[in-house]
Amino acid sequence: MNPLHNIILPEPTLRRLPWYLAYVEILRNKRVKYVSSTRISRALSVDASQIAKDLSFLGVKGRTRIGYEVEALTHALSDFLGFSRAHKAYVIGTGSLGKALIRDSGLSNYGLDIVAGFDIRPDIISREDLGVPIKHMNEIYDTMQTTPAEIAILTVPPEVAQESADIAIGAGIKAIWNFTPYRVKVAEGVVMANTSIYAHLALIYTRLDSAEVQ
Amino acid sequence: MNPLHNIILPEPTLRRLPWYLAYVEILRNKRVKYVSSTRISRALSVDASQIAKDLSFLGVKGRTRIGYEVEALTHALSDFLGFSRAHKAYVIGTGSLGKALIRDSGLSNYGLDIVAGFDIRPDIISREDLGVPIKHMNEIYDTMQTTPAEIAILTVPPEVAQESADIAIGAGIKAIWNFTPYRVKVAEGVVMANTSIYAHLALIYTRLDSAEVQ
Repeated sequence: MNPLHNIILPEPTLRRLPWYLAYVEILRNKRVKYVSSTRISRALSVDASQIAKDLSFLGVKGRTRIGYEVEALTHALSDFLGFSRAHKAYVIGTGSLGKALIRDSGLSNYGLDIVAGFDIRPDIISREDLGVPIKHMNEIYDTMQTTPAEIAILTVPPEVAQESADIAIGAGIKAIWNFTPYRVKVAEGVVMANTSIYAHLALIYTRLDSAEVQ
Repeated sequence: MNPLHNIILPEPTLRRLPWYLAYVEILRNKRVKYVSSTRISRALSVDASQIAKDLSFLGVKGRTRIGYEVEALTHALSDFLGFSRAHKAYVIGTGSLGKALIRDSGLSNYGLDIVAGFDIRPDIISREDLGVPIKHMNEIYDTMQTTPAEIAILTVPPEVAQESADIAIGAGIKAIWNFTPYRVKVAEGVVMANTSIYAHLALIYTRLDSAEVQ
């Protein structure tokens, strides 16, 4: 779609772009028209030349003494990051975290369209109060025909994480968003992103504890 | 508490430890008694010598030709990571993601004890169906006296992220777990962890799109 998308961005750049977007969206809501990289730099503590470099990946250039047009920059970032078009997703494992993600309507503002949930426990499958159908895992192949998805959000117990990812990929899923603490392996060509909630908790706990003993 | 906690672990080690824990918990559930670093290495695609080095931070040593005792290693990892003792937390911002995290009972298995939620919208504050009290943000100071917490989970809109963090820290919060796309700044000594859900989504989308055009 976007010819810029065949450039594989460095991950640090990709991590900073959503910060810029969050910041320029705030400016836009305040009806600010232009923003300099110096101003973004001060707000986010990112080097101004790094900001200019990151934004040049998007083909966005600031004008001398004026800076970036806030409205245009907002759209460019949102489009580039993929937030302005819907990406279909399944939630695999509809326990407490899976249900929570299905219920988090905010994700749809960032282009995530959860169309179905899968589980193996009949008590969960029979409940349909989450706004999307919850099906048995072995229906994933058929569901791919009727309501396809590209992304599988993995929120199963760790002991079935690898197996569940394998099934989802076998059914045609192209990207795994792994929320389990298990280190899932995928074949080359399958997109993999780990959101390590537990690692972040461990980081907070150990830092808090070390602060206490100091 | 634990004298090992005054060692500040390198972040990559801290990221790998929850993988080891998830894996040895699976082995424990299968009643496996011992595991070698070679076996962990094969399962997780982490170099065996790296595993031995990481685990030595915990004071855990494997025995020649036998390896690590699964039960002891599980406890050592869980204790070290802080998952086996409760850490009190507030959720600041009880919109869809905040509510979802409050409802995610699974976090309590990892030592996170959410004791209150805070918001500024009266329609949300009057609802108490989440199992914990939802209070007005300006009650955070009083709540700190009656039901103190160390951690603030930040799930507010990005435009009030910095201000909300400042208030929480002013009230005595020691760690911010930032789920907003805004880059929140904190004073030295305050623990900060970012869970960049939106950056991970952007990573998935851009990788998917680049795969399509190739």
